[in-house]
Amino acid sequence: MLKGKIAKLAVSDVRFPTSLEQHGSDAMVAVCCVHANPDYSAAYVVIETDDGLKGYGITFTVGRGTEIVVCAVEALSTLVIGKTLEDIVSNFSGFYRCLTSDSQMRWIGPEKGVIQLASAAILNAIWDMWARAEGKPLWKLLVDMDPKQLIRCIDFRYITDALTEQEALNLLEKAKEGKQQREEEMLKEGYPAYTTSCAWLGYSDQQLTQLCSTALTEGWTKFKVKVGADLQDDIRRCSLIRKMIGPENSLMIDANQRWDVAEAISYVTKLAEFRPLWIEEPTCPDDILGHAAISKCHNRVMFKQFLQASALQFVQIDSCRVGSVNENLAIMLMAAKFRVPVCPHAGGVGLCELVQHLILFDYISVSASLENRMCEYVDHLHEHFKSPTVIRNAHYMPPKDPGFSSEMFDESVQKHQFPHGEVWRSILEKNGS
Amino acid sequence: MLKGKIAKLAVSDVRFPTSLEQHGSDAMVAVCCVHANPDYSAAYVVIETDDGLKGYGITFTVGRGTEIVVCAVEALSTLVIGKTLEDIVSNFSGFYRCLTSDSQMRWIGPEKGVIQLASAAILNAIWDMWARAEGKPLWKLLVDMDPKQLIRCIDFRYITDALTEQEALNLLEKAKEGKQQREEEMLKEGYPAYTTSCAWLGYSDQQLTQLCSTALTEGWTKFKVKVGADLQDDIRRCSLIRKMIGPENSLMIDANQRWDVAEAISYVTKLAEFRPLWIEEPTCPDDILGHAAISKCHNRVMFKQFLQASALQFVQIDSCRVGSVNENLAIMLMAAKFRVPVCPHAGGVGLCELVQHLILFDYISVSASLENRMCEYVDHLHEHFKSPTVIRNAHYMPPKDPGFSSEMFDESVQKHQFPHGEVWRSILEKNGS
Repeated sequence: MLKGKIAKLAVSDVRFPTSLEQHGSDAMVAVCCVHANPDYSAAYVVIETDDGLKGYGITFTVGRGTEIVVCAVEALSTLVIGKTLEDIVSNFSGFYRCLTSDSQMRWIGPEKGVIQLASAAILNAIWDMWARAEGKPLWKLLVDMDPKQLIRCIDFRYITDALTEQEALNLLEKAKEGKQQREEEMLKEGYPAYTTSCAWLGYSDQQLTQLCSTALTEGWTKFKVKVGADLQDDIRRCSLIRKMIGPENSLMIDANQRWDVAEAISYVTKLAEFRPLWIEEPTCPDDILGHAAISKCHNRVMFKQFLQASALQFVQIDSCRVGSVNENLAIMLMAAKFRVPVCPHAGGVGLCELVQHLILFDYISVSASLENRMCEYVDHLHEHFKSPTVIRNAHYMPPKDPGFSSEMFDESVQKHQFPHGEVWRSILEKNGS
Repeated sequence: MLKGKIAKLAVSDVRFPTSLEQHGSDAMVAVCCVHANPDYSAAYVVIETDDGLKGYGITFTVGRGTEIVVCAVEALSTLVIGKTLEDIVSNFSGFYRCLTSDSQMRWIGPEKGVIQLASAAILNAIWDMWARAEGKPLWKLLVDMDPKQLIRCIDFRYITDALTEQEALNLLEKAKEGKQQREEEMLKEGYPAYTTSCAWLGYSDQQLTQLCSTALTEGWTKFKVKVGADLQDDIRRCSLIRKMIGPENSLMIDANQRWDVAEAISYVTKLAEFRPLWIEEPTCPDDILGHAAISKCHNRVMFKQFLQASALQFVQIDSCRVGSVNENLAIMLMAAKFRVPVCPHAGGVGLCELVQHLILFDYISVSASLENRMCEYVDHLHEHFKSPTVIRNAHYMPPKDPGFSSEMFDESVQKHQFPHGEVWRSILEKNGS
């Protein structure tokens, strides 16, 4: 199954008009000058070999600009077409280096922004194809893989001062103990999740109360609240939620990069009485020295420094923002070395579907711990995926279908193509554009 | 002149086939898997008001992927069209924030990579238009501007922990002393330059010797050498150049992000005998903690941390990589506060033309010092610009034409459009594509 040549790569600009309902609203959105809300979107990649094997990959975006990522995927596609899956996975770090360091295209990155998102979508499709070829869900492909082969998927450039290949290998060898048990535990109980669906910034107090109450009856115990636009509002909302969930459950807050460093300190001090477990993205995502808690980063070099500088207490991996599984392996291994828990970022379009594979692998094969660990869950847009997440008693249940859970229904993709799919044609006609 | 509405924005993908001659070859280029050399390119923006005022802006790229930046410029153009120049410059930091923080497009940045390059091209065109409207070269527009108005061009978000508005204002007020004299000095003698044209990695020793010898007779005293692909080669090349230029002249080395941290230290130790003044980009441009010398960064927040961490001894600004004049003002002021000299990056397409304005402003209105300061010069592609740089005795002579020196000849743009301009049609036909 690995011998076929990748003969086709198609990429679509798929957008869901979530801005019409204030889902996904956060502090950064609220202060901006135009078009206040996100339309959850994706650059959706389908690759196909000449012997008919397919792979599906996505990268998540929030609306305008998705066409730029699509353009970047097309530019990178020349580096993929014509290669066999075997060419790629037998020297995966070499292929990764090629894709992320093309001598001309690296100028417009490197390994950040549009180009990094486009690389992630393509690499996600390749990982999906590989797992399908092996007939396994991606997490199981990773769990079963020999540590040496895992290491060969990672580009160690720029991180060897924090983690060498040998150290990575040792970490994986050491975590072999108890692996089988942890896999069984996951299959039975799933991986603990927290919900962000209750407390977006654009929701009314009534909406908040109702969502939170439903979530509690469903077994949720960990809740994230978006803050940062107005302090008095935030105090009211945090107080409301803390009252509803009681003192034992967990509350996290997320400011979505709203503050300068001094502002963040002052603001967080005032929210401290609600005992947030963490404060997420208090300031600019590039600001290592200004950070104090948890951050999404755009590549392994940024994560490395956050860890070296003890500038975060939780590592928030993302399946689509960094360079796919390859780079997330490096990040999870560095987190293990620095003994910082990984708590994935999810939500958006397909982020839950994809990242659950990574965090299952992290628990079974790397960290071997659930202490202070949980995976974000947002209850949106799962209906567009062929193998949607399964949540049971606030836990992610391990996917069973082969692949990376990244395939969407053709009909969903067609209808939501921007701007010519039927959903957008009708919205744009109404707006008279 | 400021009342007209910006009615048109056109953007072109302009590429020069420099890869055919090994100009611009560096260590990163040499190790890559495909298409080893850069084609110096630009996304070239022309804006026009409904009363006929024009502005020209560029951002520099190195070939493939320029179409992605063009796509991003088109996406951002909706934020510019319909505004008057007065709307923009009367609250320039507000406009800057809008452009760089559009609620949906910031996801694919923010303020980095493709989106940042596209913002820079647009903002460069606006600054060019403003300077033309005032009938002044850009450096003179800046030098004559009231400090309060200068401050209003800067977005201080995420940097107030390193530099407040008040501190910036104080720096500018303090530097008023001797300003008139420094301006006269610049008009008479120009700003000191160094050359990178002699020692690209792809040049033979003979080419190197000849170029270096010519440069010495032209009055050049400061030389940059590209290194990082092979240590023995580098030792030979550095030794050759040090011998030719003698012990008094300056030698700088540039590794173009080739190394990991430990490699960089070992390599640089071996090149120390040639007494380089600096080592440029020894490792990943995101690696603040791993750096030790000089770096190009993608935004003011990265520069802030390099300065806070004492991780560089020279600040290398770029007219096209960060957010145009607005963000470079912030960076030059932070450098002044931290007493680190600014030595601009130039070369490419139009980088010399643009950045000379900024460094003239830095000397006249901010740093008031030439100690350890110089501006890069590369002798390529100036013939395509209407107001090319004027170098006299290894100094940049202040431009006199109104604007940002960013306008290219129509014919140059037409001929070098990718892929349909006549230069590319003929190359692509030869290659049978």
